[in-house]
Amino acid sequence: MLSPRSVLITGANRGIGLELVRQFLQLETPPRHVFATCRCPDKAEDLHTLAKSSSAVSVLKLDVSVPASFPRAREEVEVILQGSGLNLLINNAGTIDRADLSSVTVESMQSLYLTNTIGPLFLAKELLPLIQKAAKASPGQPMSCSKAAIVNMTSKVGSMADNRSGGRYPYRISKAGLNMVTKNLSVDLMSDDILSTSLHPGYVKTDMGGPSALITAEQSVQGMLTVMAGLNTETNGLMLDYAGKIIPW
Amino acid sequence: MLSPRSVLITGANRGIGLELVRQFLQLETPPRHVFATCRCPDKAEDLHTLAKSSSAVSVLKLDVSVPASFPRAREEVEVILQGSGLNLLINNAGTIDRADLSSVTVESMQSLYLTNTIGPLFLAKELLPLIQKAAKASPGQPMSCSKAAIVNMTSKVGSMADNRSGGRYPYRISKAGLNMVTKNLSVDLMSDDILSTSLHPGYVKTDMGGPSALITAEQSVQGMLTVMAGLNTETNGLMLDYAGKIIPW
Repeated sequence: MLSPRSVLITGANRGIGLELVRQFLQLETPPRHVFATCRCPDKAEDLHTLAKSSSAVSVLKLDVSVPASFPRAREEVEVILQGSGLNLLINNAGTIDRADLSSVTVESMQSLYLTNTIGPLFLAKELLPLIQKAAKASPGQPMSCSKAAIVNMTSKVGSMADNRSGGRYPYRISKAGLNMVTKNLSVDLMSDDILSTSLHPGYVKTDMGGPSALITAEQSVQGMLTVMAGLNTETNGLMLDYAGKIIPW
Repeated sequence: MLSPRSVLITGANRGIGLELVRQFLQLETPPRHVFATCRCPDKAEDLHTLAKSSSAVSVLKLDVSVPASFPRAREEVEVILQGSGLNLLINNAGTIDRADLSSVTVESMQSLYLTNTIGPLFLAKELLPLIQKAAKASPGQPMSCSKAAIVNMTSKVGSMADNRSGGRYPYRISKAGLNMVTKNLSVDLMSDDILSTSLHPGYVKTDMGGPSALITAEQSVQGMLTVMAGLNTETNGLMLDYAGKIIPW
Protein backbone atom coordinates (compact mmCIF):
# COMPACT_ATOMS: atom_id res chain seq x y z
CA MET A 1 0.00 0.00 0.00
CA LEU A 2 1.24 3.48 -0.84
CA SER A 3 1.08 5.62 2.29
CA PRO A 4 3.87 8.18 2.52
CA ARG A 5 3.28 10.65 5.32
CA SER A 6 4.68 13.41 3.11
CA VAL A 7 5.34 13.86 -0.59
CA LEU A 8 6.76 16.70 -2.66
CA ILE A 9 5.72 16.93 -6.32
CA THR A 10 7.29 19.44 -8.72
CA GLY A 11 5.45 20.85 -11.71
CA ALA A 12 2.17 20.30 -9.87
CA ASN A 13 0.19 23.05 -11.58
CA ARG A 14 -1.01 20.96 -14.51
CA GLY A 15 -0.86 17.67 -16.39
CA ILE A 16 0.66 14.71 -14.62
CA GLY A 17 1.85 16.76 -11.65
CA LEU A 18 -1.62 18.09 -10.91
CA GLU A 19 -3.12 14.62 -11.32
CA LEU A 20 -0.52 13.19 -8.94
CA VAL A 21 -1.60 15.68 -6.28
CA ARG A 22 -5.27 14.78 -6.90
CA GLN A 23 -4.74 11.03 -6.66
CA PHE A 24 -2.40 11.20 -3.66
CA LEU A 25 -5.22 12.95 -1.81
CA GLN A 26 -7.56 10.10 -2.76
CA LEU A 27 -5.35 7.34 -1.36
CA GLU A 28 -6.81 5.13 1.34
CA THR A 29 -4.25 6.65 3.68
CA PRO A 30 -3.55 10.02 2.13
CA PRO A 31 -0.35 11.90 3.01
CA ARG A 32 -0.49 14.38 5.83
CA HIS A 33 1.58 16.72 3.68
CA VAL A 34 1.49 17.14 -0.08
CA PHE A 35 3.96 19.81 -1.18
CA ALA A 36 2.77 20.86 -4.61
CA THR A 37 5.37 23.05 -6.24
CA CYS A 38 5.33 25.05 -9.45
CA ARG A 39 7.06 28.00 -11.03
CA CYS A 40 4.14 30.41 -10.84
CA PRO A 41 1.70 29.64 -8.02
CA ASP A 42 -0.15 32.87 -8.90
CA LYS A 43 -1.29 31.28 -12.16
CA ALA A 44 -1.94 27.76 -10.82
CA GLU A 45 -5.71 28.08 -10.55
CA ASP A 46 -6.52 24.36 -10.84
CA LEU A 47 -3.96 23.55 -8.17
CA HIS A 48 -5.34 26.18 -5.81
CA THR A 49 -8.86 24.82 -6.35
CA LEU A 50 -7.56 21.37 -5.43
CA ALA A 51 -5.63 22.76 -2.45
CA LYS A 52 -8.81 24.29 -1.04
CA SER A 53 -10.30 20.79 -0.77
CA SER A 54 -7.57 19.52 1.55
CA SER A 55 -5.50 21.05 4.31
CA ALA A 56 -2.72 18.58 3.43
CA VAL A 57 -1.75 20.52 0.32
CA SER A 58 0.87 23.26 0.50
CA VAL A 59 1.40 25.12 -2.75
CA LEU A 60 5.01 26.27 -2.94
CA LYS A 61 6.89 28.31 -5.51
CA LEU A 62 9.79 26.36 -7.03
CA ASP A 63 11.49 26.71 -10.39
CA VAL A 64 13.51 23.52 -11.02
CA SER A 65 15.74 25.41 -13.45
CA VAL A 66 16.96 27.68 -10.62
CA PRO A 67 18.86 25.46 -8.15
CA ALA A 68 19.89 28.53 -6.17
CA SER A 69 16.25 28.86 -5.11
CA PHE A 70 16.07 25.34 -3.68
CA PRO A 71 17.32 26.13 -0.16
CA ARG A 72 14.47 28.57 0.38
CA ALA A 73 11.89 25.99 -0.75
CA ARG A 74 13.51 23.39 1.52
CA GLU A 75 13.21 25.78 4.46
CA GLU A 76 9.50 26.26 3.77
CA VAL A 77 9.05 22.48 3.64
CA GLU A 78 10.99 22.05 6.89
CA VAL A 79 8.83 24.54 8.72
CA ILE A 80 5.65 22.72 7.69
CA LEU A 81 7.08 19.27 8.47
CA GLN A 82 7.81 20.41 12.03
CA GLY A 83 10.72 18.12 12.59
CA SER A 84 9.59 15.07 10.64
CA GLY A 85 11.18 13.88 7.40
CA LEU A 86 10.06 13.88 3.77
CA ASN A 87 9.13 10.41 2.53
CA LEU A 88 8.81 10.92 -1.18
CA LEU A 89 10.21 13.36 -3.72
CA ILE A 90 8.66 13.17 -7.19
CA ASN A 91 10.77 15.09 -9.68
CA ASN A 92 7.93 15.57 -12.14
CA ALA A 93 8.62 19.02 -13.60
CA GLY A 94 10.32 18.99 -16.96
CA THR A 95 10.30 20.58 -20.33
CA ILE A 96 10.42 19.34 -23.90
CA ASP A 97 12.27 20.42 -27.02
CA ARG A 98 11.89 18.27 -30.09
CA ALA A 99 14.78 19.84 -32.04
CA ASP A 100 16.33 17.51 -34.59
CA LEU A 101 19.95 17.49 -35.75
CA SER A 102 19.48 20.41 -38.11
CA SER A 103 17.67 22.63 -35.62
CA VAL A 104 19.29 21.73 -32.29
CA THR A 105 21.16 24.61 -30.63
CA VAL A 106 23.70 24.72 -27.82
CA GLU A 107 21.26 26.85 -25.85
CA SER A 108 18.43 24.31 -26.16
CA MET A 109 20.78 21.54 -25.04
CA GLN A 110 21.89 23.54 -22.01
CA SER A 111 18.39 24.66 -21.13
CA LEU A 112 16.90 21.17 -21.09
CA TYR A 113 19.87 19.74 -19.22
CA LEU A 114 19.35 22.35 -16.52
CA THR A 115 15.61 21.76 -16.16
CA ASN A 116 15.39 18.00 -16.77
CA THR A 117 18.67 16.70 -15.37
CA ILE A 118 20.49 19.16 -13.12
CA GLY A 119 17.31 20.43 -11.44
CA PRO A 120 16.10 16.99 -10.27
CA LEU A 121 19.59 16.04 -9.07
CA PHE A 122 20.05 19.21 -7.04
CA LEU A 123 16.54 19.14 -5.62
CA ALA A 124 17.23 15.59 -4.41
CA LYS A 125 20.54 16.80 -2.96
CA GLU A 126 18.86 19.75 -1.23
CA LEU A 127 16.07 17.64 0.26
CA LEU A 128 18.31 14.69 1.10
CA PRO A 129 18.63 15.48 4.83
CA LEU A 130 14.82 15.45 5.08
CA ILE A 131 14.53 12.22 3.09
CA GLN A 132 17.24 10.63 5.24
CA LYS A 133 15.30 11.71 8.30
CA ALA A 134 12.19 9.97 6.94
CA ALA A 135 14.19 6.80 6.25
CA LYS A 136 15.56 6.77 9.78
CA ALA A 137 12.06 7.13 11.22
CA SER A 138 11.22 3.54 10.26
CA PRO A 139 14.38 1.52 10.95
CA GLY A 140 14.22 -2.11 9.91
CA GLN A 141 11.38 -1.49 7.45
CA PRO A 142 12.24 -2.46 3.85
CA MET A 143 12.80 0.25 1.24
CA SER A 144 9.59 1.68 -0.19
CA CYS A 145 7.96 4.85 -1.51
CA SER A 146 6.08 5.11 1.77
CA LYS A 147 9.36 5.11 3.69
CA ALA A 148 11.88 7.13 1.66
CA ALA A 149 12.20 7.49 -2.11
CA ILE A 150 13.11 9.68 -5.03
CA VAL A 151 11.04 9.13 -8.18
CA ASN A 152 12.26 10.82 -11.34
CA MET A 153 9.75 11.32 -14.12
CA THR A 154 11.68 10.24 -17.17
CA SER A 155 10.61 9.19 -20.65
CA LYS A 156 11.07 6.10 -22.74
CA VAL A 157 12.48 8.58 -25.25
CA GLY A 158 15.50 8.75 -22.93
CA SER A 159 16.22 5.06 -23.51
CA MET A 160 19.09 4.26 -25.86
CA ALA A 161 17.91 0.67 -26.26
CA ASP A 162 14.43 1.78 -27.30
CA ASN A 163 15.58 4.58 -29.63
CA ARG A 164 14.60 3.72 -33.18
CA SER A 165 13.52 7.12 -34.42
CA GLY A 166 16.34 9.52 -33.46
CA GLY A 167 15.84 13.28 -33.31
CA ARG A 168 14.57 15.22 -30.26
CA TYR A 169 18.20 15.79 -29.20
CA PRO A 170 17.81 18.15 -26.23
CA TYR A 171 15.01 16.08 -24.71
CA ARG A 172 16.37 12.59 -25.30
CA ILE A 173 19.83 13.47 -24.03
CA SER A 174 18.54 15.26 -20.93
CA LYS A 175 16.37 12.24 -20.05
CA ALA A 176 19.24 9.79 -20.60
CA GLY A 177 21.18 12.00 -18.19
CA LEU A 178 18.29 11.94 -15.72
CA ASN A 179 18.30 8.15 -15.89
CA MET A 180 21.94 8.18 -14.83
CA VAL A 181 20.99 10.50 -11.97
CA THR A 182 18.42 7.89 -10.89
CA LYS A 183 20.87 5.02 -11.19
CA ASN A 184 23.61 6.90 -9.35
CA LEU A 185 21.29 7.95 -6.51
CA SER A 186 20.03 4.37 -6.22
CA VAL A 187 23.59 3.18 -5.65
CA ASP A 188 24.69 6.04 -3.41
CA LEU A 189 21.57 6.13 -1.21
CA MET A 190 20.95 2.40 -0.85
CA SER A 191 22.82 2.38 2.47
CA ASP A 192 20.43 5.11 3.65
CA ASP A 193 17.44 2.88 2.73
CA ILE A 194 16.32 5.44 0.14
CA LEU A 195 14.83 4.16 -3.13
CA SER A 196 15.50 5.88 -6.44
CA THR A 197 13.58 4.97 -9.58
CA SER A 198 12.83 6.45 -13.01
CA LEU A 199 9.21 6.28 -14.16
CA HIS A 200 7.97 6.67 -17.72
CA PRO A 201 4.40 8.00 -17.51
CA GLY A 202 3.43 6.72 -20.96
CA TYR A 203 2.42 9.00 -23.80
CA VAL A 204 -0.06 11.15 -21.96
CA LYS A 205 -2.64 13.63 -23.22
CA THR A 206 -1.24 16.77 -21.60
CA ASP A 207 0.03 20.10 -22.88
CA MET A 208 3.38 18.34 -23.37
CA GLY A 209 2.14 15.09 -24.87
CA GLY A 210 -0.49 16.68 -27.11
CA PRO A 211 -3.90 15.36 -28.13
CA SER A 212 -2.58 12.41 -30.16
CA ALA A 213 -1.08 10.78 -27.06
CA LEU A 214 -2.29 7.38 -25.96
CA ILE A 215 -3.60 7.65 -22.42
CA THR A 216 -5.06 10.25 -20.08
CA ALA A 217 -3.17 11.75 -17.17
CA GLU A 218 -5.67 9.98 -14.90
CA GLN A 219 -4.81 6.56 -16.36
CA SER A 220 -1.09 7.27 -16.28
CA VAL A 221 -1.11 8.39 -12.64
CA GLN A 222 -3.34 5.48 -11.58
CA GLY A 223 -0.73 3.18 -13.08
CA MET A 224 2.22 5.02 -11.58
CA LEU A 225 0.74 5.04 -8.07
CA THR A 226 0.31 1.27 -8.32
CA VAL A 227 3.91 0.97 -9.51
CA MET A 228 5.15 3.23 -6.71
CA ALA A 229 3.23 1.14 -4.19
CA GLY A 230 5.21 -1.89 -5.32
CA LEU A 231 8.70 -0.40 -5.60
CA ASN A 232 11.28 -2.21 -3.52
CA THR A 233 14.93 -3.26 -3.41
CA GLU A 234 14.45 -5.29 -6.59
CA THR A 235 13.25 -2.33 -8.65
CA ASN A 236 15.58 0.20 -7.03
CA GLY A 237 17.55 2.08 -9.69
CA LEU A 238 15.54 0.90 -12.69
CA MET A 239 13.36 2.59 -15.29
CA LEU A 240 9.77 1.38 -15.23
CA ASP A 241 6.75 2.44 -17.24
CA TYR A 242 3.35 3.31 -15.75
CA ALA A 243 2.32 -0.34 -16.08
CA GLY A 244 5.34 -1.54 -14.09
CA LYS A 245 7.24 -2.89 -17.08
CA ILE A 246 11.02 -2.49 -16.97
CA ILE A 247 12.36 -0.37 -19.84
CA PRO A 248 15.94 -1.21 -20.83
CA TRP A 249 18.33 1.73 -20.66
CA MET B 1 41.15 -3.11 -42.98
CA LEU B 2 41.06 0.40 -41.56
CA SER B 3 41.97 2.85 -44.31
CA PRO B 4 40.16 6.17 -44.06
CA ARG B 5 41.57 8.75 -46.42
CA SER B 6 41.05 11.41 -43.78
CA VAL B 7 40.48 11.44 -40.03
CA LEU B 8 39.98 14.20 -37.49
CA ILE B 9 40.92 13.50 -33.86
CA THR B 10 40.16 15.94 -31.04
CA GLY B 11 42.29 16.19 -27.92
CA ALA B 12 45.27 14.94 -29.90
CA ASN B 13 47.97 16.60 -27.81
CA ARG B 14 48.34 13.79 -25.29
CA GLY B 15 47.12 10.45 -23.98
CA ILE B 16 44.79 8.45 -26.16
CA GLY B 17 44.41 11.22 -28.73
CA LEU B 18 48.13 11.49 -29.34
CA GLU B 19 48.45 7.72 -29.53
CA LEU B 20 45.58 7.59 -32.04
CA VAL B 21 47.48 10.00 -34.30
CA ARG B 22 50.64 7.90 -33.93
CA GLN B 23 48.98 4.61 -34.75
CA PHE B 24 46.88 5.99 -37.63
CA LEU B 25 50.17 7.04 -39.25
CA GLN B 26 51.45 3.48 -38.84
CA LEU B 27 48.50 1.83 -40.61
CA GLU B 28 49.27 -0.24 -43.69
CA THR B 29 47.37 2.37 -45.68
CA PRO B 30 47.75 5.49 -43.56
CA PRO B 31 45.34 8.39 -44.05
CA ARG B 32 46.33 11.12 -46.44
CA HIS B 33 45.06 13.62 -43.87
CA VAL B 34 45.17 13.38 -40.11
CA PHE B 35 43.64 16.47 -38.52
CA ALA B 36 45.02 16.50 -35.01
CA THR B 37 43.21 19.11 -32.97
CA CYS B 38 43.78 20.44 -29.48
CA ARG B 39 43.02 23.49 -27.37
CA CYS B 40 46.57 24.85 -27.23
CA PRO B 41 48.70 23.81 -30.22
CA ASP B 42 51.45 26.09 -28.88
CA LYS B 43 51.96 23.75 -25.96
CA ALA B 44 51.49 20.47 -27.87
CA GLU B 45 55.17 19.58 -28.15
CA ASP B 46 54.74 15.82 -28.52
CA LEU B 47 52.14 16.31 -31.21
CA HIS B 48 54.35 18.72 -33.15
CA THR B 49 57.24 16.24 -32.94
CA LEU B 50 54.95 13.58 -34.37
CA ALA B 51 53.63 15.96 -37.03
CA LYS B 52 57.17 16.62 -38.25
CA SER B 53 57.48 12.93 -39.13
CA SER B 54 54.56 13.00 -41.57
CA SER B 55 53.16 15.54 -44.00
CA ALA B 56 49.72 13.95 -43.44
CA VAL B 57 49.32 15.57 -40.03
CA SER B 58 47.72 18.98 -39.69
CA VAL B 59 47.72 20.36 -36.18
CA LEU B 60 44.65 22.54 -35.69
CA LYS B 61 43.45 24.62 -32.79
CA LEU B 62 40.05 23.47 -31.53
CA ASP B 63 38.44 23.79 -28.11
CA VAL B 64 35.52 21.35 -27.96
CA SER B 65 33.93 23.41 -25.20
CA VAL B 66 33.57 26.37 -27.58
CA PRO B 67 31.13 25.31 -30.32
CA ALA B 68 31.16 28.83 -31.76
CA SER B 69 34.75 28.17 -32.84
CA PHE B 70 33.85 25.05 -34.83
CA PRO B 71 32.99 26.77 -38.15
CA ARG B 72 36.49 28.22 -38.34
CA ALA B 73 38.08 24.82 -37.74
CA ARG B 74 35.78 23.26 -40.33
CA GLU B 75 36.89 25.87 -42.87
CA GLU B 76 40.55 25.03 -42.22
CA VAL B 77 39.80 21.33 -42.71
CA GLU B 78 37.89 22.07 -45.91
CA VAL B 79 40.77 24.01 -47.38
CA ILE B 80 43.19 21.16 -46.74
CA LEU B 81 40.78 18.50 -48.04
CA GLN B 82 40.54 20.38 -51.35
CA GLY B 83 37.04 19.26 -52.18
CA SER B 84 37.11 15.73 -50.79
CA GLY B 85 35.15 14.59 -47.75
CA LEU B 86 36.11 13.64 -44.20
CA ASN B 87 35.87 9.91 -43.56
CA LEU B 88 36.25 9.69 -39.83
CA LEU B 89 35.61 12.00 -36.88
CA ILE B 90 36.93 10.78 -33.54
CA ASN B 91 35.48 12.82 -30.70
CA ASN B 92 38.25 11.97 -28.27
CA ALA B 93 38.65 15.18 -26.26
CA GLY B 94 36.94 15.13 -22.90
CA THR B 95 37.39 16.07 -19.34
CA ILE B 96 36.78 14.37 -16.01
CA ASP B 97 35.28 15.45 -12.72
CA ARG B 98 34.87 12.83 -10.04
CA ALA B 99 32.57 14.89 -7.79
CA ASP B 100 30.29 12.80 -5.60
CA LEU B 101 26.82 13.73 -4.37
CA SER B 102 28.14 15.93 -1.58
CA SER B 103 30.65 17.82 -3.73
CA VAL B 104 28.91 18.05 -7.13
CA THR B 105 28.08 21.60 -8.24
CA VAL B 106 25.77 22.97 -10.92
CA GLU B 107 28.81 24.50 -12.58
CA SER B 108 30.69 21.17 -12.77
CA MET B 109 27.62 19.51 -14.24
CA GLN B 110 27.27 22.22 -16.89
CA SER B 111 30.97 22.31 -17.66
CA LEU B 112 31.29 18.57 -18.31
CA TYR B 113 28.06 18.48 -20.30
CA LEU B 114 29.45 21.19 -22.55
CA THR B 115 32.81 19.52 -23.10
CA ASN B 116 31.84 15.84 -23.11
CA THR B 117 28.35 15.88 -24.63
CA ILE B 118 27.45 19.13 -26.40
CA GLY B 119 30.91 19.59 -27.96
CA PRO B 120 31.00 16.18 -29.68
CA LEU B 121 27.42 16.60 -30.94
CA PHE B 122 28.04 20.03 -32.41
CA LEU B 123 31.39 19.08 -33.91
CA ALA B 124 29.64 16.20 -35.67
CA LYS B 125 26.93 18.60 -36.81
CA GLU B 126 29.50 21.10 -38.07
CA LEU B 127 31.52 18.50 -39.96
CA LEU B 128 28.48 16.58 -41.21
CA PRO B 129 28.52 18.01 -44.75
CA LEU B 130 32.14 16.84 -45.10
CA ILE B 131 31.34 13.40 -43.66
CA GLN B 132 28.32 13.11 -45.96
CA LYS B 133 30.58 14.00 -48.87
CA ALA B 134 32.93 11.18 -47.90
CA ALA B 135 30.02 8.74 -47.67
CA LYS B 136 28.80 9.72 -51.12
CA ALA B 137 32.26 9.17 -52.59
CA SER B 138 31.89 5.39 -52.25
CA PRO B 139 28.28 4.62 -53.18
CA GLY B 140 27.25 1.01 -52.74
CA GLN B 141 30.08 0.30 -50.31
CA PRO B 142 28.88 -0.90 -46.88
CA MET B 143 29.13 1.37 -43.86
CA SER B 144 32.61 1.46 -42.29
CA CYS B 145 35.10 3.69 -40.52
CA SER B 146 37.06 3.88 -43.76
CA LYS B 147 34.00 5.23 -45.55
CA ALA B 148 32.19 7.58 -43.16
CA ALA B 149 31.91 7.40 -39.38
CA ILE B 150 31.67 9.26 -36.11
CA VAL B 151 33.37 7.58 -33.16
CA ASN B 152 32.66 9.02 -29.72
CA MET B 153 35.12 8.24 -26.97
CA THR B 154 32.87 7.35 -24.07
CA SER B 155 33.46 5.47 -20.86
CA LYS B 156 31.99 2.39 -19.27
CA VAL B 157 31.37 4.74 -16.38
CA GLY B 158 28.61 6.23 -18.58
CA SER B 159 26.75 2.91 -18.56
CA MET B 160 23.70 2.72 -16.30
CA ALA B 161 23.68 -1.08 -16.50
CA ASP B 162 27.32 -1.31 -15.40
CA ASN B 163 27.03 1.28 -12.62
CA ARG B 164 27.59 -0.41 -9.29
CA SER B 165 29.70 2.22 -7.54
CA GLY B 166 27.80 5.51 -8.04
CA GLY B 167 29.46 8.89 -7.56
CA ARG B 168 31.35 10.79 -10.27
CA TYR B 169 28.13 12.65 -11.13
CA PRO B 170 29.31 15.21 -13.70
CA TYR B 171 31.35 12.63 -15.61
CA ARG B 172 28.93 9.70 -15.56
CA ILE B 173 25.97 11.84 -16.58
CA SER B 174 27.85 13.60 -19.38
CA LYS B 175 28.96 10.24 -20.80
CA ALA B 176 25.46 8.77 -20.57
CA GLY B 177 24.40 11.83 -22.54
CA LEU B 178 27.18 11.26 -25.06
CA ASN B 179 25.96 7.70 -25.51
CA MET B 180 22.54 9.05 -26.45
CA VAL B 181 24.27 11.39 -28.92
CA THR B 182 25.89 8.31 -30.48
CA LYS B 183 22.66 6.35 -30.59
CA ASN B 184 20.71 9.27 -32.03
CA LEU B 185 23.31 9.98 -34.71
CA SER B 186 23.39 6.29 -35.62
CA VAL B 187 19.64 6.39 -36.29
CA ASP B 188 19.57 9.78 -38.00
CA LEU B 189 22.61 9.23 -40.22
CA MET B 190 22.04 5.60 -41.21
CA SER B 191 20.34 6.73 -44.42
CA ASP B 192 23.50 8.71 -45.21
CA ASP B 193 25.60 5.55 -44.75
CA ILE B 194 27.41 7.15 -41.81
CA LEU B 195 28.33 4.95 -38.84
CA SER B 196 28.16 6.23 -35.28
CA THR B 197 29.61 4.26 -32.37
CA SER B 198 30.70 4.85 -28.78
CA LEU B 199 34.04 3.37 -27.76
CA HIS B 200 35.24 2.76 -24.22
CA PRO B 201 39.05 2.89 -24.30
CA GLY B 202 39.49 0.84 -21.14
CA TYR B 203 41.09 2.19 -17.99
CA VAL B 204 44.16 3.72 -19.51
CA LYS B 205 47.35 5.02 -17.94
CA THR B 206 47.05 8.67 -18.99
CA ASP B 207 46.87 11.98 -17.16
CA MET B 208 43.13 11.32 -16.87
CA GLY B 209 43.23 7.65 -15.96
CA GLY B 210 46.13 7.91 -13.55
CA PRO B 211 48.95 5.45 -12.83
CA SER B 212 46.71 2.78 -11.29
CA ALA B 213 44.86 2.23 -14.58
CA LEU B 214 44.97 -1.16 -16.22
CA ILE B 215 46.40 -0.76 -19.73
CA THR B 216 48.68 1.58 -21.65
CA ALA B 217 47.42 4.06 -24.23
CA GLU B 218 49.30 1.99 -26.81
CA GLN B 219 47.36 -1.17 -25.92
CA SER B 220 44.06 0.68 -25.78
CA VAL B 221 44.55 2.31 -29.17
CA GLN B 222 45.74 -0.93 -30.77
CA GLY B 223 42.52 -2.52 -29.61
CA MET B 224 40.34 0.37 -30.70
CA LEU B 225 41.84 0.50 -34.19
CA THR B 226 41.05 -3.19 -34.58
CA VAL B 227 37.52 -2.53 -33.36
CA MET B 228 37.13 0.43 -35.73
CA ALA B 229 38.35 -1.72 -38.60
CA GLY B 230 35.49 -4.11 -37.95
CA LEU B 231 32.63 -1.66 -37.32
CA ASN B 232 29.67 -2.18 -39.61
CA THR B 233 25.88 -1.98 -39.79
CA GLU B 234 25.62 -4.55 -36.98
CA THR B 235 27.63 -2.51 -34.50
CA ASN B 236 26.26 0.85 -35.62
CA GLY B 237 24.92 2.80 -32.64
CA LEU B 238 26.37 0.57 -29.92
CA MET B 239 28.91 1.03 -27.14
CA LEU B 240 31.94 -1.22 -27.49
CA ASP B 241 35.06 -1.51 -25.42
CA TYR B 242 38.61 -1.53 -26.83
CA ALA B 243 38.42 -5.32 -27.14
CA GLY B 244 35.25 -5.15 -29.21
CA LYS B 245 32.93 -6.31 -26.44
CA ILE B 246 29.47 -4.73 -26.38
CA ILE B 247 28.80 -2.79 -23.17
CA PRO B 248 25.11 -2.60 -22.22
CA TRP B 249 23.79 0.94 -21.85
